[in-house]
Amino acid sequence: MRAAVYEGERTIRLEDVPDPRIEEPTDAVVRIEQAAVCGSDLWTYRGMGAGPGTRIGHEFVGTVEETGPKVTSVRPGDWVIVPFRYSCGQCRFCRRGLQSSCVRGGFWGRECADAGQGQKARVPFADGTLVRALPDGSRPEESLVPSLLMLSDVFPTGYHAALRAGIKPGDTVVVVGDGAVGVNAVLASRLLGAGRVINAGSSHGDRNALARRFGADEIVTERGEDAVRAVEELTCGRMADAVLECVGTPASFATALRLAAPGATVSYVGLPHGVDVPMAPLFSRNVTITGGICPARAYIPRLLPLVLDGIAKPGDALTGRYSFGDLPRAYEDMDARRTLKALVDVDPRA
Amino acid sequence: MRAAVYEGERTIRLEDVPDPRIEEPTDAVVRIEQAAVCGSDLWTYRGMGAGPGTRIGHEFVGTVEETGPKVTSVRPGDWVIVPFRYSCGQCRFCRRGLQSSCVRGGFWGRECADAGQGQKARVPFADGTLVRALPDGSRPEESLVPSLLMLSDVFPTGYHAALRAGIKPGDTVVVVGDGAVGVNAVLASRLLGAGRVINAGSSHGDRNALARRFGADEIVTERGEDAVRAVEELTCGRMADAVLECVGTPASFATALRLAAPGATVSYVGLPHGVDVPMAPLFSRNVTITGGICPARAYIPRLLPLVLDGIAKPGDALTGRYSFGDLPRAYEDMDARRTLKALVDVDPRA
Repeated sequence: MRAAVYEGERTIRLEDVPDPRIEEPTDAVVRIEQAAVCGSDLWTYRGMGAGPGTRIGHEFVGTVEETGPKVTSVRPGDWVIVPFRYSCGQCRFCRRGLQSSCVRGGFWGRECADAGQGQKARVPFADGTLVRALPDGSRPEESLVPSLLMLSDVFPTGYHAALRAGIKPGDTVVVVGDGAVGVNAVLASRLLGAGRVINAGSSHGDRNALARRFGADEIVTERGEDAVRAVEELTCGRMADAVLECVGTPASFATALRLAAPGATVSYVGLPHGVDVPMAPLFSRNVTITGGICPARAYIPRLLPLVLDGIAKPGDALTGRYSFGDLPRAYEDMDARRTLKALVDVDPRA
Repeated sequence: MRAAVYEGERTIRLEDVPDPRIEEPTDAVVRIEQAAVCGSDLWTYRGMGAGPGTRIGHEFVGTVEETGPKVTSVRPGDWVIVPFRYSCGQCRFCRRGLQSSCVRGGFWGRECADAGQGQKARVPFADGTLVRALPDGSRPEESLVPSLLMLSDVFPTGYHAALRAGIKPGDTVVVVGDGAVGVNAVLASRLLGAGRVINAGSSHGDRNALARRFGADEIVTERGEDAVRAVEELTCGRMADAVLECVGTPASFATALRLAAPGATVSYVGLPHGVDVPMAPLFSRNVTITGGICPARAYIPRLLPLVLDGIAKPGDALTGRYSFGDLPRAYEDMDARRTLKALVDVDPRA
C-alpha cells in the first residue's frame, strides 16, 4: 500500500510500505477513506518532531476491512472513527476516561504502528480504540464525513480545553489562537453554555469569520499586551472566567495567563513548546492551569450525536480539500497559512 | 500601644505605636489576645519581604473593643477570629467566596493598616472581616483558643490546598512539606475523605510524629528524586491523585509535580519563591496546577464547628508558647526550626 512518509524538513512523500495485517487477536485493519493534517503534523514537517523516515498522520476515518478473533465491537464493513491515539479500553486509565494515559496505548506512526495518512492501518486494541459512526456500522451521509473526521482529534481537543476549564453557564471565555483547535474550542465553549466567547490573537479576516461561525461573539485581533488591554476594555476590567490556550508558544501562554480573572482557569491543549510558567504572579489571583493531551476516545461517544444531528459542524474548519496524490501540497498550504486545515481523500487505488 | 515591628534582618522589636481608633463607620477596634507567627513572617524576618519599619503579624484573635456606627455583625465585647486579610464582604469576589481578591481588602501591616502582633488593631470592614467564635459573641473555652487562632490562616490554608486539589473519597494524597501548613493540609485531606495520606519531605522526627497525629498514614522522609522513588514504591507506581505543595521552593515544587499521577492535581498554597514550571512534561499526564492565596474568610464559618466540636485540633501545630515580651525569641526559635509554630500571648499592659 501507499502511505505518507516524512523524509526531512518540508518533505512529505507518498511511498510504498508493507500492507498491514492482523498481528494480534485484538487488532483490526482499517481501510482509510479520509485523513486530515493536524497542526502537530506541521511541527514534524518543519523539522521539529520525529526524524526522517517517519510515517505521519493521526486523524482518519474509514471502513473496517478485517478483524482479529477477539474483536467484538466492530465487524468488517463497519464505518469507523479512529481517535488520534489507540488505547486498550481495559486499563485503569481507559476505564476512567483518560485513554490518553492508557498503559498499552500509543501514537500512530510510532513504534511500528501505522500512521493515519495512508491507504490502510492496523489498529491495535480495536475494541478500545474504534468507534462506529452509526450504531449498525453503516456508512454515514457523505456531507457528515468531514465533521466525523474532526472527531478523531480536533473537536474532542477543543472540547477537552473547554471541559477542563470548568466553564459554567454564563461565563466569559477567551480562546487564544485562531487555528482549527481554537475554533473548535470556541464551539465547545458554546456547547458548555458560555455566556460570552471572545476569540483573541488573530488579525486574519477569514479565520475571524470562521471563529464567528463557530460561535465567537467578539474577536480581539491584537496579541500580547494589546490583547490584554482589549479584553480589559471588553469586560470592563473583569477579564475571563476561563481562558483556552490553543497555540502552545511562550507568548500565547503568557497572554493567556494575563487574561485570567481572579479564580479563573487557563486550559491548554496543544503541546507547549518551550513554555515555563512563573508561579508567583498566579498566586494572588488563584489562577488554575489545567489541560493536557486530550483523551479523544472518551469524548467521541458524547460528541458524535451532536455531529449526527447537525448541532455541531466541526468539519467547517477543514478549509482545504486535497486528493491523495496532492498530500504534499496540503502540507505546503497549511505551512504557508493558505489553508487552515486540510482534508485528504485517500484513493485506495493510487 | 505596643506592637511588633520588623527593624531589619533577624530583628523584631516591640515598639510604641499609635493607638488605633475608628476611622471609618465600618471599622472595629479589636484588642488582641493571642497571635501566631506565620511561616511568611519568617520570610520578612530573614530580609526577604517588606523593608525595615514594617509592622508584622497577621494571625490573631481577640475581643472587639469598639465598633463604627455602620457595623452590625459584631458588638463590643465579642470574641472574634480575624482572617489574615481584611475584606469588604460586598464586592463580587467576597460574594463568591474569593475574599483573597476583595477589591477593597488588604493585608495587615500594609498601607497604614495595623498588624496582628500587637495589642490592638483597627479592623476595616468589620462586618466583612470578623467572625465571632460563638454565635452570642461570648468567650470560648480556653483550651479551644489555640485551635481558633489557627482559623485565622493556617487551617483554612491547608483546607484550601485540599479543596482546590479536588480530593475525592478514597484518593491517595501526598502532602509535600512538614510545616504548620503541611500538617493542616494533612488534616484537611482527611476531612475531605482521602483514603491514604502520605507526608513527604521531612526527616524531622517531631514533625513526623505531628503529621501522624494530624492524620498522615505514612511518612516519606526523603526529598527530591528519592521521595519520588519512595512514593512510587508505596503506591506500586500509581503515584498520587492529589499533591499538596506546602513549601513553595523550586525544589519542592519540582518534587510535587513528579509525584502526580496522570490526571492528578497539584495544589499549592504558599507564595512560590522563584518557581517556574515547565509545561511540556505535564502535557502528556494531564496534570493540573491549582491553588493560590487562601480566602480564609470564606472557610472560617465552615471549619469553625469542627474546631468547636473538637473534631479538628489545628492548634496542636502551635508547638511553642511565648509571652508578649518574648516575641523576638519566638522568631528566633522558628527561624532555627526549634519550634514548628509559635503562639504569643499578648499582654494588654506590657
